[in-house]
Amino acid sequence: MHRERIRHPGLQSKVTTALEASRHIRDGMTVGMSGFTRAGEAKAVPLALAARAKEEPLKITLITGASLGNDLDKTLAEAHVLARRMPFQSDPALRKLINEGEVMFVDQHLSETVELLRTHQIGPVDVAVIEAVAITENGGIVPTTSVGNSASFAILAEKVIVEINLEQSDVLEGLHDIYIPKRRPYREPIPVVTPESRVGVPYIDIPPEKIVAIVVTTKLDSSSTVLPPDDETRAIASHLSDFLQNEVARGRLTNTLQPLQAGIGSIANAVLHGFIETPFHDLTMYSEVLQDSTFDLFDAGKLRFASGSSITLSRECYGRVLPRLGDYKSRLILRPQEVSNHPEIIRRLGIIAINTALEVDIYGNINSTHVGGTHMMNGIGGSGDFARNAYLSVFVTKSIAKGGAVSSVVPFASHVDHTEHDVDIIVTEAGLADLRGLAPRERAREIIDHCAHASYRDALDDYFDRALKRGGQTPHVIEEALGWHARLREKGTMLAG
Amino acid sequence: MHRERIRHPGLQSKVTTALEASRHIRDGMTVGMSGFTRAGEAKAVPLALAARAKEEPLKITLITGASLGNDLDKTLAEAHVLARRMPFQSDPALRKLINEGEVMFVDQHLSETVELLRTHQIGPVDVAVIEAVAITENGGIVPTTSVGNSASFAILAEKVIVEINLEQSDVLEGLHDIYIPKRRPYREPIPVVTPESRVGVPYIDIPPEKIVAIVVTTKLDSSSTVLPPDDETRAIASHLSDFLQNEVARGRLTNTLQPLQAGIGSIANAVLHGFIETPFHDLTMYSEVLQDSTFDLFDAGKLRFASGSSITLSRECYGRVLPRLGDYKSRLILRPQEVSNHPEIIRRLGIIAINTALEVDIYGNINSTHVGGTHMMNGIGGSGDFARNAYLSVFVTKSIAKGGAVSSVVPFASHVDHTEHDVDIIVTEAGLADLRGLAPRERAREIIDHCAHASYRDALDDYFDRALKRGGQTPHVIEEALGWHARLREKGTMLAG
Repeated sequence: MHRERIRHPGLQSKVTTALEASRHIRDGMTVGMSGFTRAGEAKAVPLALAARAKEEPLKITLITGASLGNDLDKTLAEAHVLARRMPFQSDPALRKLINEGEVMFVDQHLSETVELLRTHQIGPVDVAVIEAVAITENGGIVPTTSVGNSASFAILAEKVIVEINLEQSDVLEGLHDIYIPKRRPYREPIPVVTPESRVGVPYIDIPPEKIVAIVVTTKLDSSSTVLPPDDETRAIASHLSDFLQNEVARGRLTNTLQPLQAGIGSIANAVLHGFIETPFHDLTMYSEVLQDSTFDLFDAGKLRFASGSSITLSRECYGRVLPRLGDYKSRLILRPQEVSNHPEIIRRLGIIAINTALEVDIYGNINSTHVGGTHMMNGIGGSGDFARNAYLSVFVTKSIAKGGAVSSVVPFASHVDHTEHDVDIIVTEAGLADLRGLAPRERAREIIDHCAHASYRDALDDYFDRALKRGGQTPHVIEEALGWHARLREKGTMLAG
Repeated sequence: MHRERIRHPGLQSKVTTALEASRHIRDGMTVGMSGFTRAGEAKAVPLALAARAKEEPLKITLITGASLGNDLDKTLAEAHVLARRMPFQSDPALRKLINEGEVMFVDQHLSETVELLRTHQIGPVDVAVIEAVAITENGGIVPTTSVGNSASFAILAEKVIVEINLEQSDVLEGLHDIYIPKRRPYREPIPVVTPESRVGVPYIDIPPEKIVAIVVTTKLDSSSTVLPPDDETRAIASHLSDFLQNEVARGRLTNTLQPLQAGIGSIANAVLHGFIETPFHDLTMYSEVLQDSTFDLFDAGKLRFASGSSITLSRECYGRVLPRLGDYKSRLILRPQEVSNHPEIIRRLGIIAINTALEVDIYGNINSTHVGGTHMMNGIGGSGDFARNAYLSVFVTKSIAKGGAVSSVVPFASHVDHTEHDVDIIVTEAGLADLRGLAPRERAREIIDHCAHASYRDALDDYFDRALKRGGQTPHVIEEALGWHARLREKGTMLAG
């Protein structure tokens, strides 16, 4: 069966084992692998690397699109193969090594990694390992459930290893739109003007002689770990949809809204899911990961078109969607992440961006990544690409965590990933703060009144009142500003007394 | 003479006094005024507003391109005319009222203000007041030494007041390139592909009947307050040019570099001036404000072309450049700030962005705006538009301030305007930190070793060593992280003991 998937006749002879293929990767190399939010990652060669590391010194720099599925980041971390990792991850075992300082983690805007590689400011990529549905007659690589950085890795790497995954549906062929921005100073406008614009070709176009090995695999993508909506996420969805309906009533938006982006995770997924119960219609998405909510909206007749860089679904949703992929195909595009997340296109299309905050401060600065200001959770991902350039930049979070020991609204963000300049709307289950056109003192009033949990509101009011007495554009009691985090570290709670 | 400047015959009758013109502006209105970095601001109507405020209740929201010259922000602040001000200012009297909480200051990325106005998320603009060299036969407004947000103000406002400034050289006509991005969802790629691309028309195109009053003025722009290079700024320039020459030697850049942007102020100006003494040639600029260094580089034969949104020069440089403006004209373009600062174009052109930091932390987060984390200095300006999307994002600062009582390199930034994701290079007179591709722990080592002042290096080392024992992607001793700022507030110095 794999012979039908390798249509370039000269490449049939490149089929080999994962172990043999992996020998192109040597200690100290930089490797670019497919995979974006647990979708379409190379599945066999990474395991061969982990196995080899038990026998020989083997440390690499691993660059991907985003997080890997099938516990591959865990396996590679536990085998101590990773010296350096970028631009995103979400695995607990890898996270532990990152926070211990064993793995150097470079947390990057997802649109930027290949810009840096292309200009030789990082890299070079020695070997690319790309999961594919097929190789075309001309040697073009057809990606699977994600594009991520795969195309640029294959173009920039000296050698390319392809994993043909027989379990990935051949209906995926034709879904992708591979457009690679030209090198500067010859770069032209990227001609994407709507979410459905097709501007490239449906395969990764490289000279076939760069493909040094082909490995045949059959393992499926991991399903997503997204949680179903709960009372809090339903309340967040409801606040946001009320707000957007009010924007429609005021003539600022129509009921088709603007193209939607939603970050990975349960809250953003639940918010989009909530749009089923609204008067919005003929919606479009221009996002990075397409989650269950995309297909829920398709099935509810609410969504007209979705563009992303990957498809990552729950087990239930995979079971529903994969057999009918052909029915959705004309309404879907998967793009390289430097196109799905490109500032140029995000600003042009005027996207409503919905991303998840770990922590927000009273002035609307957002921490998306660092627990307690120090320990990495996952990474900034594409949230900065979208939030900075959005028509409307929305951040969502529950108002408390750890059973109330942690307030998501704090006097001073212990780490800043998104500054107040890039945050228009904050929503928690308690309410929604509309920060547009407000100065910091006004933002604080909105955020404390509408977003903070009742159990922390008095303490935030007290802090803000005392800060106001000190004055300033952004008043703080500077010696207390991080006191809530210090107390959490020492006493296990942000609650005083 | 003003009759020659008002070429539309129907508009001659609109000439009136500043006071009469100002009566179109009433208490509570939102007013958009020309002016960007002390260049091309409306000069008469603001004074009439300040005078009227002594006699009648008059509070407005004032939106400009950036800062105003001729002490207008001071005069308006002292007359208590300003209820709300955006998106940038640099005046000490206004700053005082902002920090006292009298004036609500909305500090915005300079590319974003008109996006928000155009989508009615802020505004509407009731009246626009625009300084012009001339009004064309068709009623087109020809700006003077800045474009800023003038074009969109005039398009979006209900009424337009034009100040024809007879002292602004008529040679300025033809210098401007006014292109306005279309409303979404009809927006197309902005066709600027090189700094010299001309894509619009040389005047602001509005229906002439919107012009309700014309005021004739003769006051010149204020000269810039830029300081001449000193030993420290010369050292900063030298470190950066050495670094760039090394990039050329490594094949990452050529001696024509990439288009340059430099933020307003003495340090960035000195850095560009320093390029006179380098092998670089045929340079181009795609920047916001064009300062003395632009013309120094032209006169030294180093610069081929410069695009900006304003021209702001020292008294000496005005004296040299203005009489010969015709000689420079074919090598200059002034654009709306939503084009000069547009993320789409900045990413496309691959700009080397040089902006000034007030404070940097050991991980490379940048504070550009808030003294002590609380008190506004000027505003973020265009630094975020450029830093986020640059080919290379450089921040420059002297390593100490206030005679050594303040270290510009601190454990934890007291306010974050640019996150570590957007900062590639930091330069002080002590040296240069190249942060590309590094994890936070590695960034700290580079910044402390190369950028910190010798008098603070041991204290930074001590903090970082103790933070490392706590672990994390971005290690901190969280209860001490803002201790340097608390000490400065209490004892007037960051130095311990």
